[in-house]
Amino acid sequence: MEHKTNIIRRRLLASAGGAVAWAGLGAPALADSTEPASQSNPGPVSASKPLPGYAEWKDADSMIVHSANTIETRRTAFGSGGITPLDRLFVRNNVTPPAAAIVKDPDAWQVQVDGVAKPRSFTVAELKTLGLQSVAMVLQCSGNGRSYFPHKPSGTQWTVGAAGCVVFTGVPVKAVLEATGGMADGMEYMTGTGGEEIPAGLDPNTVMVERSVPLSGIEDALLAWEINGEPIPLAHGGPLRMIVPGYTGVNNVKYVKKLAFTKDQSPASIQQNSYRMSPVGVKGTPEHDSVWEMPPKSWINNPYDPAQPVKAGKVTINGVAMGGMSEAEKIEVSVNGGKDWQKAEFIGPDLGKYAWRVFALTVDLPAGEHQLASRVTNDDGETQPEERVENNRGYINNSWRDHMITVKVA
Amino acid sequence: MEHKTNIIRRRLLASAGGAVAWAGLGAPALADSTEPASQSNPGPVSASKPLPGYAEWKDADSMIVHSANTIETRRTAFGSGGITPLDRLFVRNNVTPPAAAIVKDPDAWQVQVDGVAKPRSFTVAELKTLGLQSVAMVLQCSGNGRSYFPHKPSGTQWTVGAAGCVVFTGVPVKAVLEATGGMADGMEYMTGTGGEEIPAGLDPNTVMVERSVPLSGIEDALLAWEINGEPIPLAHGGPLRMIVPGYTGVNNVKYVKKLAFTKDQSPASIQQNSYRMSPVGVKGTPEHDSVWEMPPKSWINNPYDPAQPVKAGKVTINGVAMGGMSEAEKIEVSVNGGKDWQKAEFIGPDLGKYAWRVFALTVDLPAGEHQLASRVTNDDGETQPEERVENNRGYINNSWRDHMITVKVA
Repeated sequence: MEHKTNIIRRRLLASAGGAVAWAGLGAPALADSTEPASQSNPGPVSASKPLPGYAEWKDADSMIVHSANTIETRRTAFGSGGITPLDRLFVRNNVTPPAAAIVKDPDAWQVQVDGVAKPRSFTVAELKTLGLQSVAMVLQCSGNGRSYFPHKPSGTQWTVGAAGCVVFTGVPVKAVLEATGGMADGMEYMTGTGGEEIPAGLDPNTVMVERSVPLSGIEDALLAWEINGEPIPLAHGGPLRMIVPGYTGVNNVKYVKKLAFTKDQSPASIQQNSYRMSPVGVKGTPEHDSVWEMPPKSWINNPYDPAQPVKAGKVTINGVAMGGMSEAEKIEVSVNGGKDWQKAEFIGPDLGKYAWRVFALTVDLPAGEHQLASRVTNDDGETQPEERVENNRGYINNSWRDHMITVKVA
Repeated sequence: MEHKTNIIRRRLLASAGGAVAWAGLGAPALADSTEPASQSNPGPVSASKPLPGYAEWKDADSMIVHSANTIETRRTAFGSGGITPLDRLFVRNNVTPPAAAIVKDPDAWQVQVDGVAKPRSFTVAELKTLGLQSVAMVLQCSGNGRSYFPHKPSGTQWTVGAAGCVVFTGVPVKAVLEATGGMADGMEYMTGTGGEEIPAGLDPNTVMVERSVPLSGIEDALLAWEINGEPIPLAHGGPLRMIVPGYTGVNNVKYVKKLAFTKDQSPASIQQNSYRMSPVGVKGTPEHDSVWEMPPKSWINNPYDPAQPVKAGKVTINGVAMGGMSEAEKIEVSVNGGKDWQKAEFIGPDLGKYAWRVFALTVDLPAGEHQLASRVTNDDGETQPEERVENNRGYINNSWRDHMITVKVA
């Protein structure tokens, strides 16, 4: 999407300065990103690096480009409509994506289905005859919020923007199981294999993107060919992606070429060692919990834009809140660093339990500095915690304190 | 949005031909559009005219450009996610849009509020402090489906694509009323005035885009600055649009510069004479019903693509269904021209009563020609009718028979 008027507007705002200073709290990586750091000169709102070719259709001014494989959405760019526009959605690839040729004729893409009574392969065109389902869901990188960990874990220093809420459409995995005679006996995992090319001479297990999730993940899982009403672009895993709603991004295997029901978890390193909740300083192993289901999480997106001065008086605070594996049920906002909380309202359509909801609260803010935070409680009664769960690689940070922002009101 | 991979794909499909012929029934305008007309040579899937500058960011291959002010979505381009991507959303302007400069600094746009206890103007920045709400809704031109009227009404020969389902975000009109001390006594309409320039020397009433709706329209109305999570582009009425969910497109006044509560309907010709349900051959006058609320309507979008051959066997039929002023509750599909009907399923998130829902039904289709139709029933028990309501200008066509398609299965 190239909304030129919007780009012009952002450029205009970027050069306007502002009477406000903003800072993420406890965010060591902010200085390395292009987020404006000072009040008098917020600097240009532009990507830190150029967009890579396969994602050049993204709205550059909405993104922070960490590397060719890691691109996050700016906190000011989520909008308030609930669904994240594709041209503002984050990108994270574990390895170099396949050639763009694979999305030229999406219906011809093939996926092998194994660990069933009648193993076979399907083209996407064939999958399209088996049924149709859509799910609105938060797609979030396991490492979103990593930059707020004080021990500086290795990996991309994501702030809030390795997440978005999108609609995937495809065929239910359950319908694929039905069409293949059902699952073979004794299987315990659903395992998806990505279509990335394995460089010659390498042990496939060291680079292969193959992820296993427990069978409970099947319930709402899809093999999806559409995102937000369009064929899935290469950058987001087209022509076909395994979708496990509620699970972190890595479990939603891109360019899926094999869907297997398996007795064991994948032997790939990305399953065995990466994405494990190991203690700080300890390498992940199968002994440690795998990063699968997402916990409740919320953050405030507005007021935040350094180019938008905030005047004393009424201010409508808004942000996004997800429940994880159950619906976001309650959202509270604090304007004094978490000392006191007041209930905010969810606005707009309820897109289902895997989606996030936009929330809003209109408050009176006097001149001065205010610490704004939000915390969500889901339908299972689980509340977003004040503190992160420490872990070596900085996964699944849902601490409300880490996501708190400071706003200066003039 | 420029999803280049997608454009490449569509071009590839367009050149592939196909073993299927398709035709809208009772659609005199189809021959004038660029919809493929014959089986052996469906022709290039391209816009009939180039996209105008203010809409050049649209996905050209998804659109039929009737004129610089009338651009519709191809039946094959709606997708199955429920929300219509912005780069595929139709455009209809009654007069030439204002200069693009008005969306450069959206927060500075001003709207005058009259017919209230304390009339005043607001900048968009000020509106943003009053509250926040989103609504998912069908935006549909009053004349969508006009091409199916046999008397060939004057106006754009829309097929199904002067409609989309989008999310608007802004401030509730009720909050604006509260901020201005409430409505003045005796008012009966909410009247919005568009920001188009009136050429010198013309009677403003002949060209002004000013529409009045009954006060019941206020309930869910917004002054909106965002569409699908982005600032509203000029093509869709940015920087600020009056949104009256459930009402046809023209009532959602673009670039709104005045919101007034009035005793009478606007004196503008667009209110007095146009958008009136007058009998065929009779010019519209205030005696005839104004085109306001939308009735229930549905249509099938797939299978339809002439480049996608349909093989005998299982086929998943899908389309969109809206309830109008109440939720779409039941959707039925016929594969034999309306003789027999079977219930289809709504899929994906329920976006609320003003949105449409995607429906799907997997059927067995033998080789041969099949007439596919759909009809929706809303929560008020109102069912989409077989026949259109005849009227001079071809407004509000919701006949299921007119929207039926014929598919040849090989």
